[in-house]
Amino acid sequence: MRWSKQLIPTLREVPQEAEIASHQLMLRAGLIRRLGAGLYTFLPMGLRALRKVERIIREEMDRAGALEVLMPALQPAEIWERTGRLDAMADVMFRISDRQSRALVLGPTHEEIITDLAAREIASYRDLPRNFYQIQTKFRDEIRPRFGLMRAKEFIMKDAYSFDADWDATQRSYDAMYEAYARIFQRCGLRTKIVEADTGAMGGSSSHEFMVLADSGEDGIVECDGCSYAANLERAESRTNSGGVFEGADKSIDEVRTPETRTIEEVAKFFKSEPGRQIKTLIYVVDGKPVAVLCPGDREINEIKLARTLNAGAVELADDATIEEATGAPVGFAGPVGLGIPVYADIKLKGIRGAITGANKEDAHIVNVDLDRDAKVKEYADLTFAKAGDGCPRCEGGHLVEQRGVEVGHVFKLGTKYSEALGARYLDADGKEKPVIMGCYGIGVTRTLQAVIEQSHDKDGIVWPMSVAPYEVEVLAISAQDPETMRVCDEIVTEAESAGIEVLFDDRDDRPGVKFKDADLVGLPLRLSVGERSLAKGVVEIKCRETGEVEEVPVANASAVLLQRVTDLKSRLS
Amino acid sequence: MRWSKQLIPTLREVPQEAEIASHQLMLRAGLIRRLGAGLYTFLPMGLRALRKVERIIREEMDRAGALEVLMPALQPAEIWERTGRLDAMADVMFRISDRQSRALVLGPTHEEIITDLAAREIASYRDLPRNFYQIQTKFRDEIRPRFGLMRAKEFIMKDAYSFDADWDATQRSYDAMYEAYARIFQRCGLRTKIVEADTGAMGGSSSHEFMVLADSGEDGIVECDGCSYAANLERAESRTNSGGVFEGADKSIDEVRTPETRTIEEVAKFFKSEPGRQIKTLIYVVDGKPVAVLCPGDREINEIKLARTLNAGAVELADDATIEEATGAPVGFAGPVGLGIPVYADIKLKGIRGAITGANKEDAHIVNVDLDRDAKVKEYADLTFAKAGDGCPRCEGGHLVEQRGVEVGHVFKLGTKYSEALGARYLDADGKEKPVIMGCYGIGVTRTLQAVIEQSHDKDGIVWPMSVAPYEVEVLAISAQDPETMRVCDEIVTEAESAGIEVLFDDRDDRPGVKFKDADLVGLPLRLSVGERSLAKGVVEIKCRETGEVEEVPVANASAVLLQRVTDLKSRLS
Repeated sequence: MRWSKQLIPTLREVPQEAEIASHQLMLRAGLIRRLGAGLYTFLPMGLRALRKVERIIREEMDRAGALEVLMPALQPAEIWERTGRLDAMADVMFRISDRQSRALVLGPTHEEIITDLAAREIASYRDLPRNFYQIQTKFRDEIRPRFGLMRAKEFIMKDAYSFDADWDATQRSYDAMYEAYARIFQRCGLRTKIVEADTGAMGGSSSHEFMVLADSGEDGIVECDGCSYAANLERAESRTNSGGVFEGADKSIDEVRTPETRTIEEVAKFFKSEPGRQIKTLIYVVDGKPVAVLCPGDREINEIKLARTLNAGAVELADDATIEEATGAPVGFAGPVGLGIPVYADIKLKGIRGAITGANKEDAHIVNVDLDRDAKVKEYADLTFAKAGDGCPRCEGGHLVEQRGVEVGHVFKLGTKYSEALGARYLDADGKEKPVIMGCYGIGVTRTLQAVIEQSHDKDGIVWPMSVAPYEVEVLAISAQDPETMRVCDEIVTEAESAGIEVLFDDRDDRPGVKFKDADLVGLPLRLSVGERSLAKGVVEIKCRETGEVEEVPVANASAVLLQRVTDLKSRLS
Repeated sequence: MRWSKQLIPTLREVPQEAEIASHQLMLRAGLIRRLGAGLYTFLPMGLRALRKVERIIREEMDRAGALEVLMPALQPAEIWERTGRLDAMADVMFRISDRQSRALVLGPTHEEIITDLAAREIASYRDLPRNFYQIQTKFRDEIRPRFGLMRAKEFIMKDAYSFDADWDATQRSYDAMYEAYARIFQRCGLRTKIVEADTGAMGGSSSHEFMVLADSGEDGIVECDGCSYAANLERAESRTNSGGVFEGADKSIDEVRTPETRTIEEVAKFFKSEPGRQIKTLIYVVDGKPVAVLCPGDREINEIKLARTLNAGAVELADDATIEEATGAPVGFAGPVGLGIPVYADIKLKGIRGAITGANKEDAHIVNVDLDRDAKVKEYADLTFAKAGDGCPRCEGGHLVEQRGVEVGHVFKLGTKYSEALGARYLDADGKEKPVIMGCYGIGVTRTLQAVIEQSHDKDGIVWPMSVAPYEVEVLAISAQDPETMRVCDEIVTEAESAGIEVLFDDRDDRPGVKFKDADLVGLPLRLSVGERSLAKGVVEIKCRETGEVEEVPVANASAVLLQRVTDLKSRLS
């Protein structure tokens, strides 16, 4: 393909709309263009790379025995009512009605639709196991679309759904997907970290996320420096600590006047004491009633853990009026001593003595608090986020470190949540009716493409892995005005293309500097340049984008060497 | 692929929801399932065939030099406002607003979006010509979704858009697409008829439709029995006739009392005279004002032709009150004589004498009408549908015949309607700014798949062309309980698959009758059956689904012969 016949609108300037490197590069290299907030058109180069990601996914899903289907994006709202998710996912779901006033949604995911299909088409244990997948366009009304394809309103997802007769079979389906995912990302040239994750709104018993490590990632990850433990920050645990013993541990409590001293930092400064000595007291509203939630002053409450502990659908911080009513004091002076509402405490407070906390009275704190002695704690549980330096929950001696990541894949064991709600049952060998057990498995396809760039670029542009590069090789004519240069280029391009290599031929009549800069920006794995000076020596130049290595190759061998280099780079990702 | 591991839920009964053969067969052969009105899930077998249609389209579009892109389905409504189509297409367009209350639409087509892109990315004559295409999901709020994939709310379309510097180049782009389309449908095994078509809401100067002839088709087609003229009924012309001369031609008009005689049929019966002698008089409202439109009693007004003649956006039949006001008589007695509103007449009335028409008076008609003498006709024009038996507009002596068809492709020369509205301009070699000239080219991808079945089936099931069959060959084990049968099947399947043949292996432990019936229903081009009786003779049986020919082949040669047969059938569609 000649550059002059393609559409590759490269940009010199960094577009203002783009914050992170991969988003900037997708725009600058002419892969995508923005149509509206969270809406992007794929230009030819972007689409070529996307199709390669899709092909790798398809090959590995097929290899794992999954069956490809294609479900509609438009879906009757009624099916979503049956699982309760029409409300639960209302925030992100686009709703429409048609001219017959039927309520429809644009599918943000397809658990309901595939389970409804399974309910109709799967009847017997002989029809199991089955794993259906699709590569399909999803829609989510994101509150803040950003980072290009990373968080878009319309995006391509590979979603798969396994149906099994029992939990052992579900585990096998899950393992097969876990392994397929690892291969998919490896083949895309991505280094991923697999972390334990929360199942969230999806429901189910366990799940793992495939994370591409990147400072710009929206997800926090912790991993152990001593063992293989890694988890999404929402999910991560740390080794249970008991509470500290501080000065005044054996004294009885004492009230101290602390005017205008509300925040953890202000109190620490006032008492000239570390924040971890304070018992942070937050008032939450759970099922309409206030509860107090305690944690060390240097920790943050993880509301997912809190909701799970309280077995609540959602938890919400109380407003100022509720706090005043519950504690008798304005915001900033709450504490567990003498509090008349249920008190839940983070496990890291268990046994704390000599602590400081609010007095439930304006401008006053209490010191010398022994939590077990002075307050009535209903339950101790893990209620806070793990953080760097915490002990590993799995090994002795290991400590957690924090990283940022982009979630590109997610696997869930769903269990029977959807099959029960939608009647997906089968007859077992004994003729007994049972609900099928499900798993679901997602890959953000468009996001994966951008993650490749986020992980593989340098200051000059994209550094495409061979497996997903829009073309495998760029042939660059240094002067399009020199007939001999163009003749040699044409010859090499023709030979290389007949050997099955995907070639982009920069035939533009433009300055060499512009063309070399564009070559680096567009970032194809190999660049073969042809110019009068090297032709005088009878050679052309082959440069590897990743290593920067340059070799001079006799013209006659050019396409053969090129084929060898392409093959080598491919084999590293197969 | 083993049948027992696939999802092929065949049905014996004809589903009630399906009216036409292809829709019934897509359901019965387990290719699709209905999710809601006009919404279908592709099951694995349907999707495999769909992907093959897509691949053929992609190959031919690429070969024609078109560049593949992918545009969002969700689109800002604002862009549609700029061409006036937010209103013009309001009927079929799904509208949504996002959580920021931005007005969005689900794209029923993409002229606006691609032209907006071209306006940004095409700057100079050096950037031309370009032809962008996509294979993408479209949404239309059809008033009456029906016939399965033929008229769905969500469907896959291949849409392409050419951008050229002048009309000669546009003609070349148009011709290239015309030829690519002919190849695409030929490769899909479809017999299509290419007909002249109306440009309708799309605008532009000329267009052709690719029609699959089928009695169930929603489109009327006329073609000449003497030359190559063929056109969509909406567009079709016929050789201009002058009006007839009937009894009473030279007499002056006379009013006749015709109580309760309103319709063409009633009037014909009353006067014992053919309908063609009557001047049918319809009152339309055009731009808010009533006009009378005349045609012979045995013709129907073509509102597209009428709107074009009157240069009106839309024309609408008047309601009863307007008719009474305009004619002074109740509905059924309108006529051109003495009428006080503008009168337009179909060219086939030119010179009619001795005609009968309404008297603009209740229960009265006028006879002996000489239209030129007795009424004031503002303009004669072609205002009616052509019909079977009419003279061909292109050749001497040819006559038109009528057929039904399914539109699978449509090519348009658009001109500058969209480029002017959206600012897609380029600088020519002299530095002058000009609007780019566009063409657009659509293929209903999902509809094409169903059209293949509509055209290629028999009473037993689908008869897949080799090029788009879900698998190329079915290997059928007559008894899955016979180990030797299964061993031979496995061997043949393995050999055939390593030769690159796509094999569906019916390994089910089911009655042979069921399996043979399913084989015919699913309709793969070749069936190789293995049974104890034939194995005793050392042979297997290969049957061609289309011709019904059966051959016995020695087991050892089975996969080699199969490969030969597959290759032969493929070569017929390449």
